[in-house]
Amino acid sequence: MNVDRLKKLLDDVAAGKCSPEEAMSRLRGMPFEDVEFVKIDHHRALRKGFPEVVFGSGKTPEQVVQIVTRMREEGSNVLVTRSTPEIAEEVLRAHPDVTYHKAARALTLVLSPPQKFPGYVAVLCAGTSDMPVADEAAVTCEIMGVEVERVYDVGVAGIHRLFAQRQVLESAKVTIVCAGMEGALPSVVAGLVDYPVIAVPTSVGYGASFGGVTALLAMLNSCATGVAVVNIDNGFGAGALAALIMRAANR
Amino acid sequence: MNVDRLKKLLDDVAAGKCSPEEAMSRLRGMPFEDVEFVKIDHHRALRKGFPEVVFGSGKTPEQVVQIVTRMREEGSNVLVTRSTPEIAEEVLRAHPDVTYHKAARALTLVLSPPQKFPGYVAVLCAGTSDMPVADEAAVTCEIMGVEVERVYDVGVAGIHRLFAQRQVLESAKVTIVCAGMEGALPSVVAGLVDYPVIAVPTSVGYGASFGGVTALLAMLNSCATGVAVVNIDNGFGAGALAALIMRAANR
Amino acid sequence: MNVDRLKKLLDDVAAGKCSPEEAMSRLRGMPFEDVEFVKIDHHRALRKGFPEVVFGSGKTPEQVVQIVTRMREEGSNVLVTRSTPEIAEEVLRAHPDVTYHKAARALTLVLSPPQKFPGYVAVLCAGTSDMPVADEAAVTCEIMGVEVERVYDVGVAGIHRLFAQRQVLESAKVTIVCAGMEGALPSVVAGLVDYPVIAVPTSVGYGASFGGVTALLAMLNSCATGVAVVNIDNGFGAGALAALIMRAANR
Amino acid sequence: MNVDRLKKLLDDVAAGKCSPEEAMSRLRGMPFEDVEFVKIDHHRALRKGFPEVVFGSGKTPEQVVQIVTRMREEGSNVLVTRSTPEIAEEVLRAHPDVTYHKAARALTLVLSPPQKFPGYVAVLCAGTSDMPVADEAAVTCEIMGVEVERVYDVGVAGIHRLFAQRQVLESAKVTIVCAGMEGALPSVVAGLVDYPVIAVPTSVGYGASFGGVTALLAMLNSCATGVAVVNIDNGFGAGALAALIMRAANR
Amino acid sequence: MNVDRLKKLLDDVAAGKCSPEEAMSRLRGMPFEDVEFVKIDHHRALRKGFPEVVFGSGKTPEQVVQIVTRMREEGSNVLVTRSTPEIAEEVLRAHPDVTYHKAARALTLVLSPPQKFPGYVAVLCAGTSDMPVADEAAVTCEIMGVEVERVYDVGVAGIHRLFAQRQVLESAKVTIVCAGMEGALPSVVAGLVDYPVIAVPTSVGYGASFGGVTALLAMLNSCATGVAVVNIDNGFGAGALAALIMRAANR
Amino acid sequence: MNVDRLKKLLDDVAAGKCSPEEAMSRLRGMPFEDVEFVKIDHHRALRKGFPEVVFGSGKTPEQVVQIVTRMREEGSNVLVTRSTPEIAEEVLRAHPDVTYHKAARALTLVLSPPQKFPGYVAVLCAGTSDMPVADEAAVTCEIMGVEVERVYDVGVAGIHRLFAQRQVLESAKVTIVCAGMEGALPSVVAGLVDYPVIAVPTSVGYGASFGGVTALLAMLNSCATGVAVVNIDNGFGAGALAALIMRAANR
Amino acid sequence: MNVDRLKKLLDDVAAGKCSPEEAMSRLRGMPFEDVEFVKIDHHRALRKGFPEVVFGSGKTPEQVVQIVTRMREEGSNVLVTRSTPEIAEEVLRAHPDVTYHKAARALTLVLSPPQKFPGYVAVLCAGTSDMPVADEAAVTCEIMGVEVERVYDVGVAGIHRLFAQRQVLESAKVTIVCAGMEGALPSVVAGLVDYPVIAVPTSVGYGASFGGVTALLAMLNSCATGVAVVNIDNGFGAGALAALIMRAANR
Amino acid sequence: MNVDRLKKLLDDVAAGKCSPEEAMSRLRGMPFEDVEFVKIDHHRALRKGFPEVVFGSGKTPEQVVQIVTRMREEGSNVLVTRSTPEIAEEVLRAHPDVTYHKAARALTLVLSPPQKFPGYVAVLCAGTSDMPVADEAAVTCEIMGVEVERVYDVGVAGIHRLFAQRQVLESAKVTIVCAGMEGALPSVVAGLVDYPVIAVPTSVGYGASFGGVTALLAMLNSCATGVAVVNIDNGFGAGALAALIMRAANR
Repeated sequence: MNVDRLKKLLDDVAAGKCSPEEAMSRLRGMPFEDVEFVKIDHHRALRKGFPEVVFGSGKTPEQVVQIVTRMREEGSNVLVTRSTPEIAEEVLRAHPDVTYHKAARALTLVLSPPQKFPGYVAVLCAGTSDMPVADEAAVTCEIMGVEVERVYDVGVAGIHRLFAQRQVLESAKVTIVCAGMEGALPSVVAGLVDYPVIAVPTSVGYGASFGGVTALLAMLNSCATGVAVVNIDNGFGAGALAALIMRAANR
Repeated sequence: MNVDRLKKLLDDVAAGKCSPEEAMSRLRGMPFEDVEFVKIDHHRALRKGFPEVVFGSGKTPEQVVQIVTRMREEGSNVLVTRSTPEIAEEVLRAHPDVTYHKAARALTLVLSPPQKFPGYVAVLCAGTSDMPVADEAAVTCEIMGVEVERVYDVGVAGIHRLFAQRQVLESAKVTIVCAGMEGALPSVVAGLVDYPVIAVPTSVGYGASFGGVTALLAMLNSCATGVAVVNIDNGFGAGALAALIMRAANR
Repeated sequence: MNVDRLKKLLDDVAAGKCSPEEAMSRLRGMPFEDVEFVKIDHHRALRKGFPEVVFGSGKTPEQVVQIVTRMREEGSNVLVTRSTPEIAEEVLRAHPDVTYHKAARALTLVLSPPQKFPGYVAVLCAGTSDMPVADEAAVTCEIMGVEVERVYDVGVAGIHRLFAQRQVLESAKVTIVCAGMEGALPSVVAGLVDYPVIAVPTSVGYGASFGGVTALLAMLNSCATGVAVVNIDNGFGAGALAALIMRAANR
Repeated sequence: MNVDRLKKLLDDVAAGKCSPEEAMSRLRGMPFEDVEFVKIDHHRALRKGFPEVVFGSGKTPEQVVQIVTRMREEGSNVLVTRSTPEIAEEVLRAHPDVTYHKAARALTLVLSPPQKFPGYVAVLCAGTSDMPVADEAAVTCEIMGVEVERVYDVGVAGIHRLFAQRQVLESAKVTIVCAGMEGALPSVVAGLVDYPVIAVPTSVGYGASFGGVTALLAMLNSCATGVAVVNIDNGFGAGALAALIMRAANR
Repeated sequence: MNVDRLKKLLDDVAAGKCSPEEAMSRLRGMPFEDVEFVKIDHHRALRKGFPEVVFGSGKTPEQVVQIVTRMREEGSNVLVTRSTPEIAEEVLRAHPDVTYHKAARALTLVLSPPQKFPGYVAVLCAGTSDMPVADEAAVTCEIMGVEVERVYDVGVAGIHRLFAQRQVLESAKVTIVCAGMEGALPSVVAGLVDYPVIAVPTSVGYGASFGGVTALLAMLNSCATGVAVVNIDNGFGAGALAALIMRAANR
Repeated sequence: MNVDRLKKLLDDVAAGKCSPEEAMSRLRGMPFEDVEFVKIDHHRALRKGFPEVVFGSGKTPEQVVQIVTRMREEGSNVLVTRSTPEIAEEVLRAHPDVTYHKAARALTLVLSPPQKFPGYVAVLCAGTSDMPVADEAAVTCEIMGVEVERVYDVGVAGIHRLFAQRQVLESAKVTIVCAGMEGALPSVVAGLVDYPVIAVPTSVGYGASFGGVTALLAMLNSCATGVAVVNIDNGFGAGALAALIMRAANR
Repeated sequence: MNVDRLKKLLDDVAAGKCSPEEAMSRLRGMPFEDVEFVKIDHHRALRKGFPEVVFGSGKTPEQVVQIVTRMREEGSNVLVTRSTPEIAEEVLRAHPDVTYHKAARALTLVLSPPQKFPGYVAVLCAGTSDMPVADEAAVTCEIMGVEVERVYDVGVAGIHRLFAQRQVLESAKVTIVCAGMEGALPSVVAGLVDYPVIAVPTSVGYGASFGGVTALLAMLNSCATGVAVVNIDNGFGAGALAALIMRAANR
Repeated sequence: MNVDRLKKLLDDVAAGKCSPEEAMSRLRGMPFEDVEFVKIDHHRALRKGFPEVVFGSGKTPEQVVQIVTRMREEGSNVLVTRSTPEIAEEVLRAHPDVTYHKAARALTLVLSPPQKFPGYVAVLCAGTSDMPVADEAAVTCEIMGVEVERVYDVGVAGIHRLFAQRQVLESAKVTIVCAGMEGALPSVVAGLVDYPVIAVPTSVGYGASFGGVTALLAMLNSCATGVAVVNIDNGFGAGALAALIMRAANR
């Protein structure tokens, strides 16, 4: 539509129905969206192959089904995060080819497989309670075409368990580290590797953990170099950031 | 020394003076540091070409001169951040080949030029007061072998200034965005590009900006995908993270 | 009653039953409320045509019905905010001519149509989750005689959607912007227009959004000029403020 | 320049040197700023008559002189806020026709008098320590063409002083209320009038006033209707908001 | 028992069985509680006529019944605060002569009427939602022998309602003011009277009221003289403090 | 003046120049201050004998001298709090009969001795660093006619020092307790006495004392009955509150 | 496996199949975990006799049963903290020899009695609501071989109850003090004894107790010497710390 | 004196001048301090050999000299913490046998050498900026008779440096760990050892380190067992706690 209006204007100029000066003047008054199409088109191209993302929390199963259905019609891959069992059940009933990642509380629908990137992202978590966040990060990576190595339950209080996984760590291209409580794990990991570490504070803990704020602050103050921090429990954000880094490495 | 002890043990095994079982047993009791050299060696290799970093804040000019001198003797490139004019003056007197980046409050000594990576990092800041942080990020990138495009004074309140720089943005591989006050710029930028955006909250502002906390929180809560957050005013951290991403893209 | 006492005193003075000095003295001792009627009367006149407002949250359906009934008897227009479905059901049963604005969680009873003001208020929200707050603002405007244009789901991460609505924005007299998470939208909007922007932080978000505090702080620190901030989720306050501005424009 | 490129393109289309399809294609690739001029032009027109604003805090006298000189060359009215005595002295030496508002810590340069709006804005403050903020608001209003009535030292602890000024209050179109400590004054004022009240928390107080945070929170939680809040000590923001409301009333 | 041991010791001294020096030495080693009875006795005397207080929140109905039963057996008056309907029901079943103050969420059992003090305490609240706290304060005063005048729903946004009650205020000896949201009412009241005002912040409000913290801070920063602050929602504490002040006035 | 206008109106009514109805109508329109004199007069009477108070902090010596001079001319007793040595020097030069209380950082000018109340207020502090606040409270009491017993350096870590002063405590009518750090002293004291305890948190401490916030919070959460809290370091407020309680006991 | 690889290497050296130099070189490249067994073995030895600990909160009964079963198979003593009644029921059904400590919300399984330490730890709490935390600390001590003396309900508001227990306090080797609200008890206790006091803030309180933060801050700011603080409600941590101190006293 | 009164009473009983009943009665009325001597005596005995401690911060050099002089006269060992160079200079001039620990900002005067305890305390710090706090802890230990091993600059970002010191760590009886920024070191250390770890958050860092609050929170939330936390920068508290633990191990 916008394209049409602009095309019509240029046709009129070409046909001599409208002088260039008049065209200038009409362009001035033309609503912004009429020239915006360039960006939109461009934008879409750039993001091609990436899924549409639905934040399930606070939505009814019906709403999520409806959104997924619409996105499928547009041919998009879909990632639903923070999916409750109720949401999962309804979506699976309507779309039996959707995959439910229970631990990650995520649903994925892959219509066209994403472009693959060489190498892998390591996803660590400090304790078993951090697993849902770590798994959300892992599933996000995977639907964005990035291979994942999961390394779970390697908290700093038993640091030999982390060290036992050093080879996995050293061969990764990016590592995502999920930790609650004192949030120390990303600092230790970033001291061992020489590539970006994405730190995800989790809301695991009690008392003065303040729902993940302590871990968040600790990560922001890491004495190690190369630590990128995202919001508390934001496994999706960490996964997407890792995928963008992997892609930056392949542009 | 540790190496010596280990070598001696192996020699004894080879010479039949010590059975393998006995060697196993002695290794169990051998202090940790004796086998640690492996990691240290490795570690150093990985980080080769990266500068040693000195946090100038709170150090006397004499202390900084002394540290720089020692590092130079080890053949390291050196980056001094948060350098006061007094520190700069003393260091330059002792090491006339050091470069003083006044706006960035940084000193650099490059003995061996760093490995170069293709592409560039865009460094943005919202207002002129954010410039010292942005420049610290830029200087950090540069001493780590990464080219930088500076795009300054493009706050969200006059968003056309940002849009006028879209081509610079779109061709970058990573963008560092420094902003104080409401910290909205990284969200807007991350909505326009499809690669990682590193958000640096600055302590610019007054009243309820709480020395950068508001900007920090805003960045952590970005509704856009691909935003990595570092500590308030941590230009160095952002630059180093960007360089690690650039390197990850070239491993 | 108070008026009566004062009138009686003046009559006595007129009739010579009471000297002016004595009247002075008795006025001194006369309770405050006896002369207060002036203000009350005045006050009522000033606010004429504005609805009585009931904050539904924490009240039982019965309490709300009772209040609405009393206000109706006084001939007031009524706005019930934060109305639960239970409240709505009970009120509608008792007052079938009340309108239930489900998305806005509001009930309105209009006995006498409010004075209309020329022009309109644009009500924006960043995401669909901000809609209840935006709608509360819109309904409040409308019952105060102000026309509203709703522009929803125009967050900063996809800023072209906002720009596509620029004409609606530019022709408004006031814009109310509701946003959670990083709360960046009001800054961007206020940079595009030259009239007051009312920023409403919403509690949408998680982790370090702290139930809307991050958005609130971001809005208070806006680098743009002309941003008025209200409490978190306070759609009513924003709508009423917009209506007062519209009225100030017509006094 | 941008205009030139666009004009050239349209001329080419008109001259048949370029087909409309080709023009469409080139427009897609044309940098954003080339079509942005519309907004910029527009933007400038809308804001005509408003001063350029310089935040003096943290700038050297030389920097401020330089900025003011450049703005004067562009024919702009200028408002310098948070001006130290040193800044004032230097600016006045370079620009003797600049006015120094000592209490407001502001400098103004009026090359062309602003458009005047009918009515006035009342500027209140709770204590004498709030005066610098109140005066900054007042000076801002005045350079934006808005008349001001100053009503100082009318805190809630001696509420009769406020009531003694009721006539001034009731005849205003907007009132700006500056208060520190418990920040109660805006609520009381907003309960007395029926137009917008702009609340400015000040950093006046000690202990649990937390540099104005207590007053800020109190104002955001006002039980009165029609209260717009700005950042702590943001007299300029309040003044500009008031002027925008006055102008909205005159569009 | 303790008394017995001490008496025995003194008897032995009197009987010459134990020298004073030996008694001194044994007193040194005698456990603290043996001489503590003095204080305990004294203590009890001082507090005579005051009720035993049970904080009902978090206790089961059975626990409260058990405590009340035990206290009754000791002859104490009893005040149960934060009583749920379930607690009230069980206690009333076991002790039919207990009075349930529903609005105050309190239960009282008066075995011996408290000593009465001349004068009264005014208990104010800003809004109807503050009533439970205000009523808890009032009931506490009454069971401590202090007469109460309740003045409800006199918030600062409609300050004439407060002024209409000035005579009640001026004749009180102490006033308790309960307010949530911006917590401004105690400042206004303390500016009108010349005796102690006890400010009780309530958790009434939403968003940036932070469960009463805003009101609490506002009250602590009151610009008026003579304001005593207690914890959020601590109606009991306010009532008991008022009663102690009344008693201090009668010692 | 106001009185004059009102008197004139009544005279006119008495003289038949103005009907009672007309007088009623004119009273309605008469500015508020014209009837307000009642309160002002009353107000002054109530507060008679109390000093005018000047908060010295942030004022220049000249400003304080000027204020003290004016107050002296009005015949008021004067209390200057938070007086710097510079302020003290200037005021003493201008008013040699002023008393400088160095430890309390206070200046007092007593023109007419205040009404004396029977009994005394005990003023305690936990450590020697709390003394300035405690002394400010004591000086405030004294200029308001209340006798004071100072009991300093009786912190909870050496609780026997407190107990050694029990007789002083038990005979007081009110106790003011100043404490920083963990702020535990008021709870202990309030558990020992049966009258009001005024708790003053001080900013003494470091690290997690947060400038007195920890002590403030501890005092607000006291498990003892009868604790009234004032702002951090607010010795004046505590002293004035104590004096008002003493006066309430004598009305 | 790791041991095998290392053993194989040493065998090869012994057999002359591999030179010591080659062995050094291969050790360098050998993954970290291959030499890590030393530490693990060691580690286990050090902690011998201590139970495995399961944090029950957030786990399903089935998960806890499964973990306990596995630990039992390994011959470990087990402590389950934060056990709900549902967890307790399921675990007891599966493991009838497990002990359920209801007040402590803990389950213990003792397969081999822990090493006993001479002396005892006193566990105090300020109010009955602090009991679950205190009991968790006590049960933790006991399963770690430390005898406990429980001293409950000795808050600072009735300090004579604490003093009545002085002999128990003075004979202890360590005291754990659990307190919510103002958290003053550890300071008082640490002033009375000359050994370590472990302070456990509890979430008991309301309003400005902020879920235990006030107590936590108070304890961190204790003016007494020898106070060790743990997280809010962390009875387990306090008990384990006490046991480690007891053991340190016996190494 | 108190002793005298009590002795006199007992003498009178022995002499028959006072019946036991009468003595009981007089003891009831006898002020508390008269029986308190027991505790004081006892108290002193317990703490014998421990130094008197002076917190230098905020005191003038003259005040500190005066206190040290008095304590010396009482024969006490003295520890002055937070000593400025000015304080040190003055004290050394007056007391040339005092030792100035420059890095620790401490002064010590040892008149009688403290009782020695077997074993040692390891004192660690994460970075060189944490050294003043670590040294304060070390000096405190030493003046309390505890030997110290200093292990500095072993932050988690280069964890091999920590591991190189494992033997020192494992042989200690207690370890004090000082760390700023993310405060992760105590967790790592406590995972490696099986005795108490005392965590001291330092104010080292910037931005979201909030003057040590982040480190403090991280330490309170440690996932490792056996971590005792003290206030920010409280090296003295940590040292004294360590010494008390050492002594508990030797009672």
